Amino acid sequence: MNKALILLAHGSPDSRWQAPFEALESQLKPRVSTRLRLAYMELCEPSLETVVEELSKEGFDTLDILPLFFAAGRHLREDVPAQLEALNQHYPKVSLSLLEPVGQHQAFTNAIVNIVEETSH
Amino acid sequence: MNKALILLAHGSPDSRWQAPFEALESQLKPRVSTRLRLAYMELCEPSLETVVEELSKEGFDTLDILPLFFAAGRHLREDVPAQLEALNQHYPKVSLSLLEPVGQHQAFTNAIVNIVEETSH
Repeated sequence: MNKALILLAHGSPDSRWQAPFEALESQLKPRVSTRLRLAYMELCEPSLETVVEELSKEGFDTLDILPLFFAAGRHLREDVPAQLEALNQHYPKVSLSLLEPVGQHQAFTNAIVNIVEETSH
Repeated sequence: MNKALILLAHGSPDSRWQAPFEALESQLKPRVSTRLRLAYMELCEPSLETVVEELSKEGFDTLDILPLFFAAGRHLREDVPAQLEALNQHYPKVSLSLLEPVGQHQAFTNAIVNIVEETSH
């Protein structure tokens, strides 16, 4: 098993919107031990499809997808699973898992508490 | 000065999308000292307009708006400032400030690092 992690953001045609996600990816890479790639669900590159293709070519066969979303709405319940199903058929040897969005994690809630405390004083 | 904090989420007609934001608001309230309200930019209630009206009636005259957004795209650069301008005209005695989105804070990046480390092992 050769595992990598994809950080999945929504995507936007606005490069100013993309910038903080790219900054996040750059900040994360040296701080984590896993192979990490940022991908966008739609509207800009690198798309999820592009990143899955590239990681698969690099020899990764187990891809966890961590959504940089606050909550699971239609995108994470319908659109992304449909993308993953199509990718599964295209790359039958690659195992793709969609994780809970970051907004569901306790570390995230704690961060918001800290930010609220900071900005309220 | 009587200050309150509005957590501003995008909004969605999908109640399953709203649920984690409501959970976040409930978890935050007992943990912070500031008067806190969740509001949605669009697509569901309570809207930003509803919450500003209610807090203004409660006597709050200084409202900080903390966007539960990863990044500032068109919504935070154009749509929300236009909403705030309209609210400013309607409530001239209330001072409204749009803060940086939570995604721009270091506490947020640290939380993502923790989540990545957790989910990679």
